[in-house]
Amino acid sequence: MRYKVTVAYDGSPYIGWQTQNRGDSIEEAIEKVLETMHGYKVSIVGSGRTDARVHAKGQVFHFDSILDITCERMIEALNAQLDKSIRIQNVEIVEDTFHARFDATAKTYMYVLSQDAKDPFIRAYMGVDYHPLDVEMMQKACQLFIGTHDFTSFTSTKIHPDKDRTRTIYHFDVKQKGSVFQFIVRGDSFLRYMVRMMVQTVLMVGKGKESLASVQAMLEAKSKHACKYKAEPQGLYLMEVEYGKE
Amino acid sequence: MRYKVTVAYDGSPYIGWQTQNRGDSIEEAIEKVLETMHGYKVSIVGSGRTDARVHAKGQVFHFDSILDITCERMIEALNAQLDKSIRIQNVEIVEDTFHARFDATAKTYMYVLSQDAKDPFIRAYMGVDYHPLDVEMMQKACQLFIGTHDFTSFTSTKIHPDKDRTRTIYHFDVKQKGSVFQFIVRGDSFLRYMVRMMVQTVLMVGKGKESLASVQAMLEAKSKHACKYKAEPQGLYLMEVEYGKE
Repeated sequence: MRYKVTVAYDGSPYIGWQTQNRGDSIEEAIEKVLETMHGYKVSIVGSGRTDARVHAKGQVFHFDSILDITCERMIEALNAQLDKSIRIQNVEIVEDTFHARFDATAKTYMYVLSQDAKDPFIRAYMGVDYHPLDVEMMQKACQLFIGTHDFTSFTSTKIHPDKDRTRTIYHFDVKQKGSVFQFIVRGDSFLRYMVRMMVQTVLMVGKGKESLASVQAMLEAKSKHACKYKAEPQGLYLMEVEYGKE
Repeated sequence: MRYKVTVAYDGSPYIGWQTQNRGDSIEEAIEKVLETMHGYKVSIVGSGRTDARVHAKGQVFHFDSILDITCERMIEALNAQLDKSIRIQNVEIVEDTFHARFDATAKTYMYVLSQDAKDPFIRAYMGVDYHPLDVEMMQKACQLFIGTHDFTSFTSTKIHPDKDRTRTIYHFDVKQKGSVFQFIVRGDSFLRYMVRMMVQTVLMVGKGKESLASVQAMLEAKSKHACKYKAEPQGLYLMEVEYGKE
């Protein structure tokens, strides 16, 4: 039986989604609980990685199980044994051909930035920047990313040169709610650091330190040296992974 | 110049307010920044301790300074150097006779308990209990504590036997907001663990595991063995310290 699982997590105590033999990963924490339930090692396949300190409200993974229990019971069993920083939201039984990574057709991320210098409870959950921001200019900068582009300028320099870096952004905007700025971006898929680099670039436009033209030039450069900006990880949330019918 | 400072903090990374030579205290973190600003050790005097993992939205302390800067500048200077888990809310210049502990006339605490098994972001910020709770019975149990009582049954067993344990509770209630229960308690002062022991006792009434009569008996027992309940620290917030004119 193949299970599709939606999971939310507080990424602050973890090295990220993926196991790397240098600290606790979310993947490993879930696999440990599944091993306890099954009596043997059960591997899970996530929709993709999230970096250290990045959170999720709707990460998706799949795994195969011989256990004959209902989805509701699976949610309860997992949540009873997982640390409270990892909470299963939903479990579905899917076709054996379903693949959490290969079948994902879109992802949505949220980035939250606070300008409140007096709230001690946001440090692990929002980016912080006290510089005045021009929200209209930031909205215009977001628009530049929408559509299909080669995002070589907006990813880790470590990516293999042969890898295709063309991605499509369906939606990217920023809204101000009091002292908090909330970015929402939806695309077909994202390269490593792509959302954080896009968000920080838009912030630099909001501060008047980059122009719309310079951002456009960064995109067109398709160069790993074009963008030196990357927003702090703790403001980033993987909100939703979509599996559209093709 | 004596400064009265109101500070909010996320208590989760700390061993508590008070320095104890076995980990980071909030007191120590603030004194380190003051030492950097002054060039010599500056001691602060808090309104009282908070335990490990307990938070504050309105803790108060005082200190003496030879620095001739405005209160607004003092807030900025402290917040610029403090870790983001400790945020100065307000600074006032007060009489040299003001004392943050001795002059406090009332304190208000909040305790927050969640019944949501699916939220990964509350683990360090709310108590968690999934058992059904009777909120009307809990409200009645809160009432039993209001007034002046000897709270020997509701404090640490380590308190010196000669110490006076008579305290006055002005207000104690609990409200339900969806899956969250919020307790508010205001009193003249509180013994160690007193709020957490009262809250957990009220919760046991809400679960039907203690009766109003058994809680009344606990109070009247004035015995360190009468109450074995204590709520988890991470749901507790010191909200306000009052300094009434006598």
